[in-house]
Amino acid sequence: MIKSIEWRGNFIRILDQVRLPHEERYLDCFTYREVVAAISRMNIRGAPAIGLATALGIALGVQSICCQDQETFYREMDLICDEFSRTRPTAVNLSWAIKQLKEVARGHSSSSVAELKEAIRHKALEMVEADLRTNQEIGRQGEPLIPPGARILTHCNAGALATAGYGTALGVIRAAHEAGKNISVYVDETRPFLQGARLTAWELVKEEIPATLITDNMAGYFMQQGKIDLVIVGADRIAANGDVANKIGTYSLGILAKAHNIPLYVAAPTSTLDLSLPTGEEIPIEERSHEEVTTIFGIRIAPEKIAVANPAFDVTPASYVSALITEWGIIYPPYSEGLRKVAQAKLVLCC
Amino acid sequence: MIKSIEWRGNFIRILDQVRLPHEERYLDCFTYREVVAAISRMNIRGAPAIGLATALGIALGVQSICCQDQETFYREMDLICDEFSRTRPTAVNLSWAIKQLKEVARGHSSSSVAELKEAIRHKALEMVEADLRTNQEIGRQGEPLIPPGARILTHCNAGALATAGYGTALGVIRAAHEAGKNISVYVDETRPFLQGARLTAWELVKEEIPATLITDNMAGYFMQQGKIDLVIVGADRIAANGDVANKIGTYSLGILAKAHNIPLYVAAPTSTLDLSLPTGEEIPIEERSHEEVTTIFGIRIAPEKIAVANPAFDVTPASYVSALITEWGIIYPPYSEGLRKVAQAKLVLCC
Repeated sequence: MIKSIEWRGNFIRILDQVRLPHEERYLDCFTYREVVAAISRMNIRGAPAIGLATALGIALGVQSICCQDQETFYREMDLICDEFSRTRPTAVNLSWAIKQLKEVARGHSSSSVAELKEAIRHKALEMVEADLRTNQEIGRQGEPLIPPGARILTHCNAGALATAGYGTALGVIRAAHEAGKNISVYVDETRPFLQGARLTAWELVKEEIPATLITDNMAGYFMQQGKIDLVIVGADRIAANGDVANKIGTYSLGILAKAHNIPLYVAAPTSTLDLSLPTGEEIPIEERSHEEVTTIFGIRIAPEKIAVANPAFDVTPASYVSALITEWGIIYPPYSEGLRKVAQAKLVLCC
Repeated sequence: MIKSIEWRGNFIRILDQVRLPHEERYLDCFTYREVVAAISRMNIRGAPAIGLATALGIALGVQSICCQDQETFYREMDLICDEFSRTRPTAVNLSWAIKQLKEVARGHSSSSVAELKEAIRHKALEMVEADLRTNQEIGRQGEPLIPPGARILTHCNAGALATAGYGTALGVIRAAHEAGKNISVYVDETRPFLQGARLTAWELVKEEIPATLITDNMAGYFMQQGKIDLVIVGADRIAANGDVANKIGTYSLGILAKAHNIPLYVAAPTSTLDLSLPTGEEIPIEERSHEEVTTIFGIRIAPEKIAVANPAFDVTPASYVSALITEWGIIYPPYSEGLRKVAQAKLVLCC
């Protein structure tokens, strides 16, 4: 099984996604700052994986806090959390992970610092395990939406690499493949970071799921040709009204899919929900380095003096989303209601 | 002035567009076969420039035909033309150029072989000069469509490099800039061949026209943000009903523009019209090498075993095109009528 991230006792092992598909090289992080850097540089990426790297990174970081009293521990832990929260603004899973660990820390207010450290480490590991189960459940929930023989378009990488394993959008695709549905996949290369060409293609080749790589600007053409039956993508944040922030280009796919009467499904764990935001307009869009656009593997592809824009995400309005596939079931429009119900049910069952 | 192609007596000098923007290197073709190869490998590309390279290439080729009788000359010339016609199937300008030169050859049926060679050379050079004038006229015709301060999206390269100079879509942009309209340009990078990032960005930087490079999948986002006022592209072939074949991704832009109530203009010389085709469905779409998608400047960006599709063009239905800008004036829907009138007027005035 593809493991994007792993706790190894005194370090965290990250499968370096910058080097894929050329090399399956691992990055061993012995300090939390190395994990912060790995998230910023996108050695590990994908909303759920960013959340898990944050959780494990904080768990690693707090092990080195040198103090006896809880107050100092909490203060130091906050500083560590702040560093993580500054890395990637769009994926809500990051702040979700921080919130989870802070709650655990606060819940152990009468414990010793050593016990606190252990409780945080335990929670982070639990989150990794839970994410894998969540993805398998997303796959199980979403699989009935995929007709036999479906030709599926996906964008970016919402696969095992973007999660603890199995994947969200690719989890549904895996589940349909495992169910013997004879599906095939069109993979958008996903410029500028090429998550589709480098990561999704790599996962699908590894799993022997039939897949064809295309450039992002070919998606409309293949829809026009009647060669795409549905679109399935992941999400970095979902607002209370069902608006979805996801990798740049998802919004265009939403419009293209609607124009061709093709459903667009969003597969994401409920940790990606941010019901504190009424709509997607409030979701911060990360602007990344311009070099991601002007260079590919270090080779310059544009003249030196050209200005560049590099928004890493866009927001697809809920009206372009046919259904949200979560581990708690499929949510159909109107999303406000469905999302509120899921959040309530989760609250009742988990607490 | 940027010169994509130039007749140099005993050879043809081509500005090598594969090496741009890294190097402004010229390719000197001493045989017509080198020109055929340059068109196939896209050292020179863009519908009008493909037509001109074909014209000059044939003119170069026929100079070396060794015979005294016209019949042999015509036969040899046909063989040369066949080689050119096999290079790029979508741009109609290629077969238009061949047709023009064959007509000249046939029109000199009582001339000596030496006179025939000279007539063909003369016609080819005339076509290059005419193309430059045509582009300047396209610019003049299209300029009034561009509002002051317009933020214009363009795709691929329909610039000086794609023509004898000045450009078609970029010709209109140049004309608006020269008119002091304070315009700015969003440049789609245009995967897989990166004509936007490598060529259009290079032309705009050279001309000091404000321009921002984006990846193809960002176009929808910037339309959603209200940052694009209009789209302008070139064309590789226009059918009798106004359907437009152009670089892959143009169709998606048509749908995106319509969804955002943004006009999409197509700027092209009348040599790009193919009124023999009732609709765009009959336009052949060139499938190019898969390596264009899987490697960038020789660097592999996808796993070895992944399947790939690489249609180089798509067809944008006439209903997504707000107007066609030609050297004979602007044509508005319904196109069938307007295109027929232009073709008739041209026939009357040119013959």
